[in-house]
Amino acid sequence: MAPLAKDTRSEQHDTAQELTDRAFVLRKLGEFYYEDRPQPSLQSPRDVLVQIVATGLCGSDIHYWTHGRVGPYVVEKPLILGHESSGIVKAYGRDVKNLKVGDRVALEPGIACNTCTLCRGGKYNLCESMRFAATPPYDGTLSTHYVLPEECCFKLPHSISFEEGALVEPLSVAVHSCKLAGISLGTSLVVYGAGPIGLLSCAVGRALGATTIVAVDVVQSRLDFAKNYAATGSYKMEEQHIELTVEMARSNIGIPDGPEVVIDATGVASCINHGITAMRRGGTFVQVGLSAKKIDFAMMQICDKEITLKGSFRYGPGDYALAIELLQTGKVNLKELITHIHDFDDAEKAFETVLKREGIKSIIRGPNFTGQNPTNFIEIFG
Amino acid sequence: MAPLAKDTRSEQHDTAQELTDRAFVLRKLGEFYYEDRPQPSLQSPRDVLVQIVATGLCGSDIHYWTHGRVGPYVVEKPLILGHESSGIVKAYGRDVKNLKVGDRVALEPGIACNTCTLCRGGKYNLCESMRFAATPPYDGTLSTHYVLPEECCFKLPHSISFEEGALVEPLSVAVHSCKLAGISLGTSLVVYGAGPIGLLSCAVGRALGATTIVAVDVVQSRLDFAKNYAATGSYKMEEQHIELTVEMARSNIGIPDGPEVVIDATGVASCINHGITAMRRGGTFVQVGLSAKKIDFAMMQICDKEITLKGSFRYGPGDYALAIELLQTGKVNLKELITHIHDFDDAEKAFETVLKREGIKSIIRGPNFTGQNPTNFIEIFG
Amino acid sequence: MAPLAKDTRSEQHDTAQELTDRAFVLRKLGEFYYEDRPQPSLQSPRDVLVQIVATGLCGSDIHYWTHGRVGPYVVEKPLILGHESSGIVKAYGRDVKNLKVGDRVALEPGIACNTCTLCRGGKYNLCESMRFAATPPYDGTLSTHYVLPEECCFKLPHSISFEEGALVEPLSVAVHSCKLAGISLGTSLVVYGAGPIGLLSCAVGRALGATTIVAVDVVQSRLDFAKNYAATGSYKMEEQHIELTVEMARSNIGIPDGPEVVIDATGVASCINHGITAMRRGGTFVQVGLSAKKIDFAMMQICDKEITLKGSFRYGPGDYALAIELLQTGKVNLKELITHIHDFDDAEKAFETVLKREGIKSIIRGPNFTGQNPTNFIEIFG
Amino acid sequence: MAPLAKDTRSEQHDTAQELTDRAFVLRKLGEFYYEDRPQPSLQSPRDVLVQIVATGLCGSDIHYWTHGRVGPYVVEKPLILGHESSGIVKAYGRDVKNLKVGDRVALEPGIACNTCTLCRGGKYNLCESMRFAATPPYDGTLSTHYVLPEECCFKLPHSISFEEGALVEPLSVAVHSCKLAGISLGTSLVVYGAGPIGLLSCAVGRALGATTIVAVDVVQSRLDFAKNYAATGSYKMEEQHIELTVEMARSNIGIPDGPEVVIDATGVASCINHGITAMRRGGTFVQVGLSAKKIDFAMMQICDKEITLKGSFRYGPGDYALAIELLQTGKVNLKELITHIHDFDDAEKAFETVLKREGIKSIIRGPNFTGQNPTNFIEIFG
Repeated sequence: MAPLAKDTRSEQHDTAQELTDRAFVLRKLGEFYYEDRPQPSLQSPRDVLVQIVATGLCGSDIHYWTHGRVGPYVVEKPLILGHESSGIVKAYGRDVKNLKVGDRVALEPGIACNTCTLCRGGKYNLCESMRFAATPPYDGTLSTHYVLPEECCFKLPHSISFEEGALVEPLSVAVHSCKLAGISLGTSLVVYGAGPIGLLSCAVGRALGATTIVAVDVVQSRLDFAKNYAATGSYKMEEQHIELTVEMARSNIGIPDGPEVVIDATGVASCINHGITAMRRGGTFVQVGLSAKKIDFAMMQICDKEITLKGSFRYGPGDYALAIELLQTGKVNLKELITHIHDFDDAEKAFETVLKREGIKSIIRGPNFTGQNPTNFIEIFG
Repeated sequence: MAPLAKDTRSEQHDTAQELTDRAFVLRKLGEFYYEDRPQPSLQSPRDVLVQIVATGLCGSDIHYWTHGRVGPYVVEKPLILGHESSGIVKAYGRDVKNLKVGDRVALEPGIACNTCTLCRGGKYNLCESMRFAATPPYDGTLSTHYVLPEECCFKLPHSISFEEGALVEPLSVAVHSCKLAGISLGTSLVVYGAGPIGLLSCAVGRALGATTIVAVDVVQSRLDFAKNYAATGSYKMEEQHIELTVEMARSNIGIPDGPEVVIDATGVASCINHGITAMRRGGTFVQVGLSAKKIDFAMMQICDKEITLKGSFRYGPGDYALAIELLQTGKVNLKELITHIHDFDDAEKAFETVLKREGIKSIIRGPNFTGQNPTNFIEIFG
Repeated sequence: MAPLAKDTRSEQHDTAQELTDRAFVLRKLGEFYYEDRPQPSLQSPRDVLVQIVATGLCGSDIHYWTHGRVGPYVVEKPLILGHESSGIVKAYGRDVKNLKVGDRVALEPGIACNTCTLCRGGKYNLCESMRFAATPPYDGTLSTHYVLPEECCFKLPHSISFEEGALVEPLSVAVHSCKLAGISLGTSLVVYGAGPIGLLSCAVGRALGATTIVAVDVVQSRLDFAKNYAATGSYKMEEQHIELTVEMARSNIGIPDGPEVVIDATGVASCINHGITAMRRGGTFVQVGLSAKKIDFAMMQICDKEITLKGSFRYGPGDYALAIELLQTGKVNLKELITHIHDFDDAEKAFETVLKREGIKSIIRGPNFTGQNPTNFIEIFG
Repeated sequence: MAPLAKDTRSEQHDTAQELTDRAFVLRKLGEFYYEDRPQPSLQSPRDVLVQIVATGLCGSDIHYWTHGRVGPYVVEKPLILGHESSGIVKAYGRDVKNLKVGDRVALEPGIACNTCTLCRGGKYNLCESMRFAATPPYDGTLSTHYVLPEECCFKLPHSISFEEGALVEPLSVAVHSCKLAGISLGTSLVVYGAGPIGLLSCAVGRALGATTIVAVDVVQSRLDFAKNYAATGSYKMEEQHIELTVEMARSNIGIPDGPEVVIDATGVASCINHGITAMRRGGTFVQVGLSAKKIDFAMMQICDKEITLKGSFRYGPGDYALAIELLQTGKVNLKELITHIHDFDDAEKAFETVLKREGIKSIIRGPNFTGQNPTNFIEIFG
């Protein structure tokens, strides 16, 4: 690794070609394969080369596999999936200031331009030039190494495992949506969807001071989990056979004057409209779950109750740092969510596990995984 | 009028019975009649008795007439319509501080409780105990007098006519929605709907500094009016036969990178979705036009662009005062919008004019109208 | 008490004259006396008559006693002090909706007009017509009864004692300042002054998610208390003999990159400037402690670091409700702060205790105190 | 210029050495000299080489000359002053997207790191790694060329002259402070100081909708200018011989209920305290003028009126773009402020003009100035 030491921009290209990464690649809808690829090289003096240790699977990964696309993003050539990852710093460019080889890091997998109006204005998650992992045409992290700039690498305290570090990504999604929702001390909150993002929204909501937290889902076992995990109440969503009234919706969730904040992590019209109908005048509704292109939506109540509806897209300034602080201070627990860990060679099994909705979160180990001990990486990479 | 002088709470009840108001009443869907009623009495020491001089008609007035209801509000017994009014102070209770008999005032026609959590928190427009004129079961202002508390009476400078004073109400609706939209210097704005609220939103948007203001409607003559009045551009909405893309929507309205703010004053799904599709990432969409209960809505873009969608309901703190300042400083012109003035005895004709969408705004004079001179009211009521 | 039942406005004035309240009155600077006074009567149908059970003493009470004034407010005629109180509802007017005789309540001791621009705009604490207890010319609560409108009476859950209920007032001061400060999850906070308001600001800051909370004071025992109570660190303020640098200030408080939020509860220039010097660029400084009219202030840093400095005045919308929720959920503990309880007949001793800075909080029982049992009030007043 | 075409990073270093820039340099306090220097080279693929055409002088330039320092920034080696500049694009790196050779640009003279927490969070003006022109150790723009990244170059429409383009910098200072102040339609505003920043704050305040704008200064001629330029009223500040009361302060400025917003562009204690005393409860005070390190400050009123005091530091996201839009739409006029234009060879005279407080704004032409025609630059540099 000597040639990859600090400020090695001229030499590294050649040497990199000799090294070999192993990648798990989606050839096209429904078809994975493994491939050897050259180790990625640093593109800028601010870049960092990270060896991937753990990667969580997200619904979008599954959707690319089963549908070949997510919304406008279409898999047109082989694509590496995975964007919830943690790893170990292996090399970095000359302008990197606060990282050193061997640092354990969580990866923020979106590389913003940092200079457009949106980036400079504090909304880098909306950057039109964003290069986001596992979003065509950009490869994801299910490979030996990944390269991204220093501002996307967040040091993990030793108390946080690589598996938890991988899940800083979905935790940051929940942090972002809860911040947009303006949750504070005493807020009454309802969260639709008790999958990973919904559960984490309950947990972050609780950390922000929400005192009533009702989880809503169609699966009772998920609700039971939610109540043990972070919710104070739950409601098993039933199909409506008569028109839903405000009173019925509030009675369902057990909040007589309606919640101040609703977070929808389902994208499903019946959930969204149930939440809109239940909520208090002047409340805030955050849509974090991707919906269909169009849904039949209870717009009249938006005016009538002067509701604010906000879309929440990924995460922005401060979200990763706060997510790590929530973990470090024990305000949010990620360990309970990790129900499956697969070796890199069994990556497809991890996708099947998620597709079958088994457990909550599945993690895939990096190709060079040799155990949790963060001190043995030197031997691996000599 | 001697018995109605300051602090006359004990005597006025008796004398009021003898006086006679003339009201224009909606008996039920489609049927108006005139009725003599006792003059309303002051209910609290903070109340003011106002002789109505001018009343504008609003879409909701028409809707009660033609449908017998607006959303959840149903005409179950005879109802006086009208809530856009100005008039002259005739009497007031002992705790009224800043008004005197003869003052010309615009009426804010919603009486909030002022003490609930929403009122105390600066959102009195969402007060659950609001008594709003011409909203069942509360009578409106198409009568000789109306009583409301001092905080709902806004003195009109002499430069503002009673007709303009009546239209401070819809102007305040536009002020409220433009404030919620966060319009400021340099904002690019699109307004769907070129009726009174849409036009006024264009005008208030311009006063707030919006530099690009595009009006959208299906009627060309309204667009022509809008461009002369306050818009910098216009688009005649066409039915879409192919799926609308972001590029098409932006091209339609002539804003290549999309508007930062959209205000929808139509409530129509095709307009709402056109606006959502056109708008810039991170933008704000304000829904001020009442929609159907549910609409087919482009929800996916709410997340994808991290749009904030706000319902705008009536008007709140500071809106009336700002509306009057806009008039007084000439930043908004209301005179151009007043296309029809009807005598009280021809009130139904005014409703027909609006129903046929003739002109922009129709005004109905108060029953005792004897000309604009605000100094002759004493003779009328002496 | 039959004549004081609901809607008794006509009779109550006479009967009230016969009843006798006992008041502890400040005749003038330095001189207290006890006086029998007629029981106060309801002035409006929204008023509530509350029997006072417990009253905490505040620095301003002491200051009126020792200086005869606080800022512009001068004791010009005998004044009843006390404004941190809880009690039992004894009677109420016909428009009171949510209270009944026997309810245990915390009193918000400022009666706003609710109708001026500031009140309607959600800033009733700044109402120019505010009638605030124990602020000349308005009497305070150190008496048998106190009358105030329903919106100023907050029901106490049974888990909260009257003594804690009295301290909802200073807790609301801390809630207000912490909300103005924008404290949220992960915020680093320094609080100058470890008296009641400073301690409560630490506690509320912690409840809002602040992860670093440093208390600063000149008295070591207060700092020890603060660390046991809610702070994560402390600094014993020393007199500066050399010019304070940013590095020194940050080193003193042990926050290398400076706190994001500072709350000053001392009003002392050396503390204020220490905080300004320590704080991070773009941070927020909240001044809740009353300072001298003018102080020598480090203004240059306000620009240089683009600091936001906010004055915090009493409490506003939602603060009392949130304070009670903090108590009920155990997020803030008031019991630990109550170090002295005095009978009404020993009220002056309570003032002396505070003057000597003994303990943290001194409570004075109401004149009719007969123990904590809230069910026995009927016998008292039956 | 062929070697300086797009993507010339390898060759340009050598060729640049041969070219010669002419710089006006401050050797030390009080002493200027001219020096030939190598033309600066592009340091990054996002850099732009700009030929300086016009540079305005700012108070800080004068202060470095007369005092050798501004606050903590000390002139320790020869320093080129000047940071209010416009010019012509001469070359650029391979990653520059939206500029071409010959573009006329205003320069935002602070280069932020764009990747620290403050930059990513939308507060790049507070970046700890900011490299700001004419602030030791970074040279300013009083030279032939200047290099800065694309996001700091703002294209000037043809309707804006280079002299106006230079003054986009102080205009952006005013935009930033007015935005922090929350000025909107109907705001009442007082501005202390009728120098360039104060005058521009009046003008931007007017563009944002302020309806009452009172300029305060000690020099009558400046007040006369202000009233012709953008203010609606003025007050000639007098020394106070008796203690200033709220009523006196409000009477001085002619706003009976006090201004909602005060901007201080003087940094002088008497002005700051006059403004604090005059202002309305709940108002916002923005400090944009650099004060002495400490001043005697009316802190008690900060609490008592719950005032928000904000420091305003340079400019941030969107400010330059908005400043240019204000010019382009004619909402702010800069031509009236340009009272002196000096050739580069007479640069010291420009400093003397400002030191003597002659006129409002002095501009220094770039070394290669050959007239305003922006099309002839090719011949100059061909």
